[in-house]
Amino acid sequence: MADKMDYASAGVDIDLEGSAVASLISSLGKSVRPSGTPGAPVDLPGGFGGLIEFGDHLLALATDGVGSKLQIASMLNQWSGVGIDCMAMNVNDLLCVGAEPIAFVDYVAVPKPDPEVHAALGASLAEACRLARVTLAGGETASLPGIVNELDLSGTALGYLKKGEAITGENLQTGDVLIGLPSSGIHSNGYSLVRKIMEVAGLQYTDDAPFDSSSPTRDIKRFNNTNDNITLGEIFLNPTKIYCDPVVDLIKTAQAGESGFSVDDIRGICHVTGGGLSNLLRLHDSLGWEIDDPIAPHPEFLWLAEIGRVDTWEMYRTFNMGCGMIITVNLQCADKIYSWLKKRMPGVKVIGKVTNNGRKVVHSQLGIEYTHY
Amino acid sequence: MADKMDYASAGVDIDLEGSAVASLISSLGKSVRPSGTPGAPVDLPGGFGGLIEFGDHLLALATDGVGSKLQIASMLNQWSGVGIDCMAMNVNDLLCVGAEPIAFVDYVAVPKPDPEVHAALGASLAEACRLARVTLAGGETASLPGIVNELDLSGTALGYLKKGEAITGENLQTGDVLIGLPSSGIHSNGYSLVRKIMEVAGLQYTDDAPFDSSSPTRDIKRFNNTNDNITLGEIFLNPTKIYCDPVVDLIKTAQAGESGFSVDDIRGICHVTGGGLSNLLRLHDSLGWEIDDPIAPHPEFLWLAEIGRVDTWEMYRTFNMGCGMIITVNLQCADKIYSWLKKRMPGVKVIGKVTNNGRKVVHSQLGIEYTHY
Repeated sequence: MADKMDYASAGVDIDLEGSAVASLISSLGKSVRPSGTPGAPVDLPGGFGGLIEFGDHLLALATDGVGSKLQIASMLNQWSGVGIDCMAMNVNDLLCVGAEPIAFVDYVAVPKPDPEVHAALGASLAEACRLARVTLAGGETASLPGIVNELDLSGTALGYLKKGEAITGENLQTGDVLIGLPSSGIHSNGYSLVRKIMEVAGLQYTDDAPFDSSSPTRDIKRFNNTNDNITLGEIFLNPTKIYCDPVVDLIKTAQAGESGFSVDDIRGICHVTGGGLSNLLRLHDSLGWEIDDPIAPHPEFLWLAEIGRVDTWEMYRTFNMGCGMIITVNLQCADKIYSWLKKRMPGVKVIGKVTNNGRKVVHSQLGIEYTHY
Repeated sequence: MADKMDYASAGVDIDLEGSAVASLISSLGKSVRPSGTPGAPVDLPGGFGGLIEFGDHLLALATDGVGSKLQIASMLNQWSGVGIDCMAMNVNDLLCVGAEPIAFVDYVAVPKPDPEVHAALGASLAEACRLARVTLAGGETASLPGIVNELDLSGTALGYLKKGEAITGENLQTGDVLIGLPSSGIHSNGYSLVRKIMEVAGLQYTDDAPFDSSSPTRDIKRFNNTNDNITLGEIFLNPTKIYCDPVVDLIKTAQAGESGFSVDDIRGICHVTGGGLSNLLRLHDSLGWEIDDPIAPHPEFLWLAEIGRVDTWEMYRTFNMGCGMIITVNLQCADKIYSWLKKRMPGVKVIGKVTNNGRKVVHSQLGIEYTHY
């Protein structure tokens, strides 16, 4: 049996990455665009970045890539999901400040262009645009044989919101209710660990899944022309959930104020990415979070933990464990918001509450907690 | 002496790249965002992409990377210019539709993060933001050891303009005047050929330049702590010119209408990138272009042509040859616009005119022409 594994042993040095990013940021100066002009930076409580002024609105930019999930796509030459992954990683970040995503651009770096791969990427991006309801407003393909070994895909999403309607976590209160939105699988984080586990276990991505992958809150997107059993590759490449539907409509409904809740009642939105549950800590400087009735993890998470001997604490700070977005709402209208969401997305669940016994995330059933992002 | 070289022999298959991009685009459907709503796509004459509606304004996105120039930066561990290159490639594209760039996000993919490299990139991006007058509104650093061998840097710029004030080339007329803006060197295109020439010639980037690199329209950005002669590496890594100053102010002056010219008098703006002079063909379906009094190429272009035995036609469709942007203006106010620009950017020059003898670009002194992009 494999040695016990964690994210760091899979070759990802989070501290080094953080230190590199901090070095870059510390070299940046103040923006030359003065407050009150288009493009002036807007600092929100909680350190949310990416927002700029634009008249009565704020514009938001998010940029991210698919990461090492692409290496599985390359190996299997299966690209139908990665455009959705790329879109999701970006638009889901925009939703967290209450922005409606409206446009997207992609950046593809390849050692050598392949028209068939690009056609598949185009189809995947087109599906992603429909799901996220955005316009694909451009893109770039760079042939960089000396720089990239394999295809790299990243993108940038643009969103907007009205001034004064940003969701920041600033007005979070003890007793606020956490509503979990189900994920579709591993999404686009933790793949260095997934790949390491597969390698150590000596398994192939074309192998049939040695477990029942069915889960009430998602379907697996099958590869084309496949009628056989679901493979590990299909499970691991299942595209990331795009939460624009229903989150954009939830925010619009709140803005309209006719359903018994307002934007102020949506206190914070957390995209559960790398860092897992610890992402919640970004939303507030002093409050805590208790998950007491979680969404059940999809079977692949349990299988990965077992086969890779990854401990529970590590699993929940590496993967989304079944819950890809957490919306924190005012207790007074939590039922209304929960009912509104549940009609539009099966598997939505009240999973916990905001607490006041220190800045930490507690998963009470499992007895694990996180105090640092 | 080396065999005669061209861009294709340097390993870049432009046709394959075009075919891959066409495959991607043909897989895309129509945007789901209806006309009149934020994010709805705007099709401009001339096929300009990247524009979306936003109330009384249009927003424009441009995404591009630095490309194989990065391989020289990697080899020399000199990163002070590449942030400027990345910014320039994007904001100069936005200027071509008359958009004012306001924000930028960077995407860095590395095999392993290096805080020192990131600090240098941050300083370079900060300088780029000042030059382009934009806010750095976010960024992403991805550690992708299996995907990238070396650092890849790309970015996305956001700009805006008023509806109805896009510069598209649509109202170009025979007799319109071409005003050339000097480049700072090779900018960020053609580096596969530069590198191939250096390799075949057996030269090192740390070698002193075997020619006088001085040029009246630019200075070479020196590496830190260097008091020796200018090296080939310094010349080839000289950062791309960012044209926001003076082009944004030119457009604003035209909009204000108090200097004897209007936005309608700025008929077309061309960013001279890969494709060199043939980029002009993108601006109009039937008119032609005659360059009869060009800006003199910087010494490195003449040296590369000689040492690599690259013919003149190939040089002018691979490199900017000293002229990085061409603004086409109404003959009636060409003197006023030229004078306005000349005061703000030394080396600006009237280089030619729009013709009506077929869709082609003619460099009359050299007897070369381009009929295809």
